[in-house]
Amino acid sequence: MKIVTQPSDKALVPFVSVDHMMRLVHHLGIEETLRGLAGYIEVDFRRWEKFDKSPRVASHSDVGVIELMPTSDGEAYGFKYVNGHPKNTSEGLQTVTAFGLLADVYTGYPVLLCEMTLLTALRTAATSAMAAKYLAPRGARVMAMIGNGAQAEFQSLAMKAICGIDTVRLYDIDPKATQKAARNLGGMGLKVVECASAEESMEGAEIITTCTADKQYATILTDNMVGSGVHINAIGGDCPGKTELAPAILHRSEIFVEYPEQTRIEGEIQQMAPDHPVTELWQVITGAAPGRRDAQAITLFDSVGFAIEDFSALRFLRDAVTDTGFYSPLDLLADPDDPRDLYGMLRRAAPQ
Amino acid sequence: MKIVTQPSDKALVPFVSVDHMMRLVHHLGIEETLRGLAGYIEVDFRRWEKFDKSPRVASHSDVGVIELMPTSDGEAYGFKYVNGHPKNTSEGLQTVTAFGLLADVYTGYPVLLCEMTLLTALRTAATSAMAAKYLAPRGARVMAMIGNGAQAEFQSLAMKAICGIDTVRLYDIDPKATQKAARNLGGMGLKVVECASAEESMEGAEIITTCTADKQYATILTDNMVGSGVHINAIGGDCPGKTELAPAILHRSEIFVEYPEQTRIEGEIQQMAPDHPVTELWQVITGAAPGRRDAQAITLFDSVGFAIEDFSALRFLRDAVTDTGFYSPLDLLADPDDPRDLYGMLRRAAPQ
Repeated sequence: MKIVTQPSDKALVPFVSVDHMMRLVHHLGIEETLRGLAGYIEVDFRRWEKFDKSPRVASHSDVGVIELMPTSDGEAYGFKYVNGHPKNTSEGLQTVTAFGLLADVYTGYPVLLCEMTLLTALRTAATSAMAAKYLAPRGARVMAMIGNGAQAEFQSLAMKAICGIDTVRLYDIDPKATQKAARNLGGMGLKVVECASAEESMEGAEIITTCTADKQYATILTDNMVGSGVHINAIGGDCPGKTELAPAILHRSEIFVEYPEQTRIEGEIQQMAPDHPVTELWQVITGAAPGRRDAQAITLFDSVGFAIEDFSALRFLRDAVTDTGFYSPLDLLADPDDPRDLYGMLRRAAPQ
Repeated sequence: MKIVTQPSDKALVPFVSVDHMMRLVHHLGIEETLRGLAGYIEVDFRRWEKFDKSPRVASHSDVGVIELMPTSDGEAYGFKYVNGHPKNTSEGLQTVTAFGLLADVYTGYPVLLCEMTLLTALRTAATSAMAAKYLAPRGARVMAMIGNGAQAEFQSLAMKAICGIDTVRLYDIDPKATQKAARNLGGMGLKVVECASAEESMEGAEIITTCTADKQYATILTDNMVGSGVHINAIGGDCPGKTELAPAILHRSEIFVEYPEQTRIEGEIQQMAPDHPVTELWQVITGAAPGRRDAQAITLFDSVGFAIEDFSALRFLRDAVTDTGFYSPLDLLADPDDPRDLYGMLRRAAPQ
């Protein structure tokens, strides 16, 4: 006899918890995970024009924002739920939490639900390194990592795994953050140098990553600090009113962005004229636009994070957990035998 | 010693599965569940103006649509994921599946994740009955239920629980659907009459509910079928190109809607001039607008379903499961001890 409260296979959605995500990363290895993610992101940047690029759907309050970030390539549909509440830290909560969903466009059925706080950290680093692979000077080995918060270790390891850097020079206004990052990066095959100033961190660096948490216009890099022949990976300027670079640096740089419509509002280039020339990164990857022009150029990836990167990460995760089993089935969808008999399904589930 | 892979309480989001939802309904009783839902919906209709009423965010394909329906009252934020794929039935899948989420606006943290296929069926019926309580002729005891698909039993029981009907007269173009509904409604305290035509089902009915699945302009009710002094609860006309009533009936009716901007596109009134007069239901409930004017009037609730009803349902469910425990904690949110040390949390979770 069929147990009617037992959900059918179709009703079960694979769910990847935070614990599963951590196990998956250790199973694959973090560098292999980052390389895998970068590969999926690169594939999706190559077919950029196929995507339905909706704007974020934001709900603002006095203390924060809750956003839904949907996109679709016509075969799969993904969205991320993400909040941003700067005041949370002082209350012992995360500033940002996130989860995501992937669905099949043909049936509308969800095929994956997952945590996305860790996954976003991983995809952000993988995107940075994928961009640097195209834009950084050839043979770059040294990265300055300015801002040693939650993203610092992920950035360092992605640049090692994907671009082949061997040295990271850490600086943060808070020495405890630098110590934390240095401790976490110990034994990972990178030479780690703790620096006492931003200038010191940049000595000999071909890649400069800025990822600070200032919630206002800040000048982490001034014009005189930046020499020629470097790649700047600017992560921290990612919302209106929050930037990290002096405008003079932007004027000297070739600027690469994910999605200009969004970056002009949220990125470093919010400081520039609305028609300041930028290149879309996907066009560099397809070969439609040049990347670095010569060894002396300053390239700048003005990164704010875009829905397609989350979509790529969801695709990567779906494939990775299908292979490894790091998920549990979630009884999320009602699936009566007869679609017209939803009430009958409910009634038959009554306790005897 | 602390087990570092153990998520903290803050990281765990209560999850209500399909199985939990069915158990909750049986624990409360279906009529009590419907009354409870109607109460929450009525409270939210009374404070209609406080809501952030965003449009749906739809992703269309050749075979269906995937929608996100967010709303917020400034304290809580909710959204529903719902798909609509008419061709799914022929492939053994549901046309519509849904799940939802409620979050705390102050922290941005999700506080509830749940199935919403059953919950949507329940809230749709509760909304209809809540509207009929204000609009139907006094002392209505008999309902014609035209279209005996997935919504028929929920509508019948909600009208019994909330408006006090004692008789339901069933009709469907497919006699098997009528038999299914009659069987499911047996022993529930309603007199159930199976009818061979729409006309027969309407004999003596003070409330006429239409809920058919036609995906095109159809005329379930013609003008000569509808006498005076009835309330029409029109559920089935709920998307562009799908209606159930002859325009002549609409011209004779006082029309009540949820949200005119949406109903003029999706409801019965898509057949009428863009400025055809309608009354917003929330204004009837607050007393700002009249409802039924006299015993002879034809009132029409042109219902298409609105995000605030889902929000009310999510609020009801959160409170109901907090009291009863019909949920399981879901490890959805990464919550490192130190917000800056996300990587450390991942590293410490490495297998020994």
